[in-house]
Amino acid sequence: MDDIRCVAVVGLGLIGGSLARDLAARGVRVLGYDPDPDALRAARDAGVVHAPLPPDLRGMAEADALVLAVPVSAVAAVLHTARPHLDSVRLVTDVGSVKRGIVAEAEHAGIAERFVGGHPLAGSHRSGWGASHTGLFHGARVFLCPTSRSTPEAIALAHHLWRRVGGSPEILPAEAHDEQLAWTSHLPQVAASALALALAGQGVAVSDLGPGGRDTTRLAGSSPAMWTAICLDNAAALGDAIDVLRQRLHALGDAIRQSDACTLERLLAEGQAWADGRTGMAGVPESGAANAEIGRSPG
Amino acid sequence: MDDIRCVAVVGLGLIGGSLARDLAARGVRVLGYDPDPDALRAARDAGVVHAPLPPDLRGMAEADALVLAVPVSAVAAVLHTARPHLDSVRLVTDVGSVKRGIVAEAEHAGIAERFVGGHPLAGSHRSGWGASHTGLFHGARVFLCPTSRSTPEAIALAHHLWRRVGGSPEILPAEAHDEQLAWTSHLPQVAASALALALAGQGVAVSDLGPGGRDTTRLAGSSPAMWTAICLDNAAALGDAIDVLRQRLHALGDAIRQSDACTLERLLAEGQAWADGRTGMAGVPESGAANAEIGRSPG
Repeated sequence: MDDIRCVAVVGLGLIGGSLARDLAARGVRVLGYDPDPDALRAARDAGVVHAPLPPDLRGMAEADALVLAVPVSAVAAVLHTARPHLDSVRLVTDVGSVKRGIVAEAEHAGIAERFVGGHPLAGSHRSGWGASHTGLFHGARVFLCPTSRSTPEAIALAHHLWRRVGGSPEILPAEAHDEQLAWTSHLPQVAASALALALAGQGVAVSDLGPGGRDTTRLAGSSPAMWTAICLDNAAALGDAIDVLRQRLHALGDAIRQSDACTLERLLAEGQAWADGRTGMAGVPESGAANAEIGRSPG
Repeated sequence: MDDIRCVAVVGLGLIGGSLARDLAARGVRVLGYDPDPDALRAARDAGVVHAPLPPDLRGMAEADALVLAVPVSAVAAVLHTARPHLDSVRLVTDVGSVKRGIVAEAEHAGIAERFVGGHPLAGSHRSGWGASHTGLFHGARVFLCPTSRSTPEAIALAHHLWRRVGGSPEILPAEAHDEQLAWTSHLPQVAASALALALAGQGVAVSDLGPGGRDTTRLAGSSPAMWTAICLDNAAALGDAIDVLRQRLHALGDAIRQSDACTLERLLAEGQAWADGRTGMAGVPESGAANAEIGRSPG
């Protein structure tokens, strides 16, 4: 029986607010809490939160599921606060970008059976209730990271919750999740921030960039506090990824400084092949298309 | 008298094709050439090119302006080909991302008076006639880089040409242009390619990324040949910029490895302040907003 009639959402920011909007739009009763009274009031006024929860999070008896949609750095404390009121809740989940720590916390808190970590790939550099909107999870991958003792019912409920709002859930152990996300999410974030810092130091403004430069630096606008917590929670894997990125920059910089057109074009072509989804095949062609383009000189 | 009735466009790719489309739509007669016969035929069939030019580029007598919209690596050769036929052309310009080299070429070719380098900030990682479209330059900044002897008439014509298609031209000496673009355009390109190489080496696919990671790597899909030429043409300034980016990555990586939350959050907040257009003020606040967000834990 995987019906979900009532969900408690703690944290009504971009992710929690958008989830609450979609659930409410689908007839699910939403209990909500946010430490920002304006956000909580706005969510109630919008008809998204049907009943507010108090700061101590009591009053979740009717909730089938509790979603912890708070920053990674806050999720353990919120879990501790909610713990005494969870007896009738069949699923406890979260939305954080790192999963090992919170899965361990859930096991430590004695709710391993009912906990399934969650991570929808549907972020944005924007944040807060004001950034939330319906449809955010439509078509989004959602990683589900069970504890060592999550029950089939809890896992099924987590699947159901995210499918209900249009997401595509897939199971991934927390360790594999964090290793993968170090590359797919945390490294791009750090790269964008590093580029922003380099440009800021040079006195370049965002308005000086073309559309490509703006794309490349967009993630730098993300919340520093949220990302500090995520990066530190995944420090080992992310540190390795940053080292690899620095090595690739070094290789590109060397080729440029040495006017080594052959190496530079080969590296750029490897990156392009990846961007075009052509890697995984047996190597990258020796940039035949690229040479054709250099040949666009008439005569 | 800055009226433009006829423009010759050599190279009907993303930039040249889009410029030709906009000019034709505004009643300007367009003479066109592309080494790819399919592109030239498509541009004629679309009514964008009114008369084709032959490979030796003779037949420009009626053109007020010649636009060299070919890759940076090809522009000198095209200029050489066109040189015998330029007597009645009042403006020769180009669209390349580096300007020192082509300005020097124009002076060397004896057309310093009539040459004004151009660079519209309106690229894309896509390329070719198939990627061209009307409106590409609407609201775009366009750098104009005169030679040491460009005439006021040539400069006025260049202004007029780009305003005619919705661009915002501004004069910038070629040296300052190349130094600035090393940071605002060429460094983001190299950063995106380096990130793509790092992810490719790890076996990560583009489809594994969230929207932020896709934004950050989008430029990696750009033409390797085009960017090899641009990077090598601006090697000194770009090499310095890459070094600074590597240093910033190193600083972020160190803070992460050492679990130095204070330094990490300060760096991310500096990047965010830049992304939000808040730098240039007297320093970055000590991340008060960020701390407020960490405090989003109830109880």
